[in-house]
Amino acid sequence: MRNLTLLTDFYELTMMYGYFRHGKTEEVATFDLFFRPFEESNFCIAAGLEQAVDYLENLHFDQEDVEYLRSTGAFDEDFLRYLKDFRFTGNVRAIPEGTVVFPYEPLLTVTAPICQAQLAEAALLNIVNHQTLIATKARRVCYAASPASVLEFGLRRAQGPDAAIYGARAAVIGGCSSTSNVLCAQMFALPPKGTHAHSWVMSYPSEYEAFKAYADTYPNNCLLLVDTYDTLGSGVPNAIKTFDYLTAKGYKPVGIRLDSGDLAYLSKEARKMLDAAGYRDAKIFASSDIDEYVLESLYQQGAKIDIYGVGTKLITSNNTPSLGGVYKLASLNVKGVEVPKMKISDNPVKMTNPGVKTVFRLFDKSSDKAIADVIALKGEVIDETKPLTITHPVERWKTKQVTNFYVKELYVDAMKEGKRTLPHKDVYQLQSDCKASLDGFWEEYKRLSNPHDYKVDLSDKLYQLKERLILEERKTVAK
Amino acid sequence: MRNLTLLTDFYELTMMYGYFRHGKTEEVATFDLFFRPFEESNFCIAAGLEQAVDYLENLHFDQEDVEYLRSTGAFDEDFLRYLKDFRFTGNVRAIPEGTVVFPYEPLLTVTAPICQAQLAEAALLNIVNHQTLIATKARRVCYAASPASVLEFGLRRAQGPDAAIYGARAAVIGGCSSTSNVLCAQMFALPPKGTHAHSWVMSYPSEYEAFKAYADTYPNNCLLLVDTYDTLGSGVPNAIKTFDYLTAKGYKPVGIRLDSGDLAYLSKEARKMLDAAGYRDAKIFASSDIDEYVLESLYQQGAKIDIYGVGTKLITSNNTPSLGGVYKLASLNVKGVEVPKMKISDNPVKMTNPGVKTVFRLFDKSSDKAIADVIALKGEVIDETKPLTITHPVERWKTKQVTNFYVKELYVDAMKEGKRTLPHKDVYQLQSDCKASLDGFWEEYKRLSNPHDYKVDLSDKLYQLKERLILEERKTVAK
Repeated sequence: MRNLTLLTDFYELTMMYGYFRHGKTEEVATFDLFFRPFEESNFCIAAGLEQAVDYLENLHFDQEDVEYLRSTGAFDEDFLRYLKDFRFTGNVRAIPEGTVVFPYEPLLTVTAPICQAQLAEAALLNIVNHQTLIATKARRVCYAASPASVLEFGLRRAQGPDAAIYGARAAVIGGCSSTSNVLCAQMFALPPKGTHAHSWVMSYPSEYEAFKAYADTYPNNCLLLVDTYDTLGSGVPNAIKTFDYLTAKGYKPVGIRLDSGDLAYLSKEARKMLDAAGYRDAKIFASSDIDEYVLESLYQQGAKIDIYGVGTKLITSNNTPSLGGVYKLASLNVKGVEVPKMKISDNPVKMTNPGVKTVFRLFDKSSDKAIADVIALKGEVIDETKPLTITHPVERWKTKQVTNFYVKELYVDAMKEGKRTLPHKDVYQLQSDCKASLDGFWEEYKRLSNPHDYKVDLSDKLYQLKERLILEERKTVAK
Repeated sequence: MRNLTLLTDFYELTMMYGYFRHGKTEEVATFDLFFRPFEESNFCIAAGLEQAVDYLENLHFDQEDVEYLRSTGAFDEDFLRYLKDFRFTGNVRAIPEGTVVFPYEPLLTVTAPICQAQLAEAALLNIVNHQTLIATKARRVCYAASPASVLEFGLRRAQGPDAAIYGARAAVIGGCSSTSNVLCAQMFALPPKGTHAHSWVMSYPSEYEAFKAYADTYPNNCLLLVDTYDTLGSGVPNAIKTFDYLTAKGYKPVGIRLDSGDLAYLSKEARKMLDAAGYRDAKIFASSDIDEYVLESLYQQGAKIDIYGVGTKLITSNNTPSLGGVYKLASLNVKGVEVPKMKISDNPVKMTNPGVKTVFRLFDKSSDKAIADVIALKGEVIDETKPLTITHPVERWKTKQVTNFYVKELYVDAMKEGKRTLPHKDVYQLQSDCKASLDGFWEEYKRLSNPHDYKVDLSDKLYQLKERLILEERKTVAK
């Protein structure tokens, strides 16, 4: 496994050194990883926990890492010795991958000696921000494509190898049926998908010769790219001629692929040509600069497309290529005393929720659909037998009374005392968990434009704690 | 070194298998990697060649790769045996990293047996697209920040670990002074940069105690983050108090960092407070959602900022998070006969330039500034002693006569017969090459908004070849 221990911001190391020098290494910090309202989507699909746990389990400074840090001149020998035995020994609670999550809900809570929890900040954010971003985008793209399926095709435009590999993993969690990326497919046991490129066609004297050679190579899996020269003028007719050749040999052709031009028009015309030639079962596969908005338009236009290949705009989350996840100190345990912490800011959006927390999701008993989420202090219990008042987290005069509900706590223990406790799940299991989580929400929350606001409340105890800390801070600053 | 051989689209492998089965493995293909007009910028900064060469040098199928490919059921045993000894044995010509490059100019030309050249398509695009994208964005950000310097700070929002590591490398090529990313700094011999976070301040009972503890830890490198509670009300006064403490001990404080709020206002007020306290040399460092447009506005407002930390929007190239680089067959050598190839399309933007090519940059002798680029067939020579007519590549009636010029050919040999011939250069050398390349252009081409059009012509020979191939293709399709 790649050693990512130095995949951190330098200030994490200078702070660790500071904590070390000031005798704070025994203090136990709780950090929350969460995102603030995200312009691309009203909710996200949690992803990346598997790699986050791998990273924490593998945290260690190699000899060369220690020597490198010595060479920076920023640390003393005591600290460098301390790093040699440094391991992650903390606990991680997390919302499992594939779960629908909302702003301010901690996706991940790390409770560990402060140096450990601090060091991990940048890499945990990098991993979880990236995969959650792409799983969320994939959910949107697959939602718009449905009932057609979506293949992830973005390797060549992804932001480096990891963006391609882990982005494709996250895309499958979010709903894509598979990927063209062979390394990702190998790593995560997915079937790799693909046919041939324009260069295949161009490397033969004619389009038909290229198609026939491909058909001879993959007679059982013959999907032909028809837009190298002239889609309807030569591509589709040559594909049909090749399908006739295959059929005569007893094989059943798979279909054609469109990769440029007006996909609505071309797919409808190609469908007619294929049907007229007797290839009603042949699939039409399309790719070319597709995202959820193009898919909605293709659907409106009655495009005849069975499978989409989506590349650039999914793998980069083109409209919003970053999820602004943050990692904030929520509590500090000094000599056994737990002190809740929060960031105070003039901007209420930037205020954090103090204390060690949990998240409950309330479901209506008769429909099994989610009603609201409640962020609470860890250890709080919601009584399902009594009506519950849900309060808008900022506009406190807006309330709603909830009855006939049941409660699910969203967290699992991902690590205990530095050891993984997260169950291993393959990517298709996570995809099916994601589908189940999405099925728990009404369509009104899932539509792509102007979705209905979902309520995420703070429990009364958490709200009161927050108010108290803000008032205390205001008094301190006033002094 | 990580084995990225399977970092490829599945269709590259199915095409390789097709070429293998049809006896085409001896055919030598030339592929060009280039980008089409890019909405974010009129030119790009080439980057990623170092990692592209590493990738090609290391291409090989491990035993487990071969077994994995066997398990897909798509290949026969002859082909799998062929993969065991598979290596890259071709040639690569490329425009060096740090060079200003324009649309349609091949950044990289691979000439190799067709299976090798085909396999490498997806990974080469992934690597070069990503780093060129980020180097180009960094150039824009640094241009707008000048004379202030820019640090790369994007690890936590980058699209996965590689995006952070190689993105930071590319950012330094494009002009950033360094990065906060320790792993990138270690790998590429850069000084890692950073101070402390809000969590440091929050982990102490008061802001001043936190500042003092940091000053004690790094008395020679004391840069304090002043916005945890109230920037002007407590942060700057506490920083000044800490600077007084340091000064009394004989140290010189470095400065303060603003990470939220109105940077123009806060920096001007903080500057006054620092100056009034006698800290005229203390630097003001700022970060918070910065890109080239924010920088232009801060400049207009007279913000007093010496160093910028730029994260999310640089490391993701926020406005345009992908460079649409493509990799197209330009020539095929079958049994010693070189046959130029091109993709014909109804869309002139998607037409490719056929043949094995080179790129010349013409400079004015008196100013040493670039006049135009000429894409030509390899082996063509431009006579510097005669006037040259530059023709607009599409609008052929637009011409310009050039005299008093000298010519530079942009390519270097990066690999010959599978061995690296590219000279090793460290990242700061590439940054200085980039600066030199940029210095060869008038400001009119470099401004961020509505830059002047730079002329990239095709040589007459290349233009005639292209016309001939289009006409031949039209005749074939007509039949």
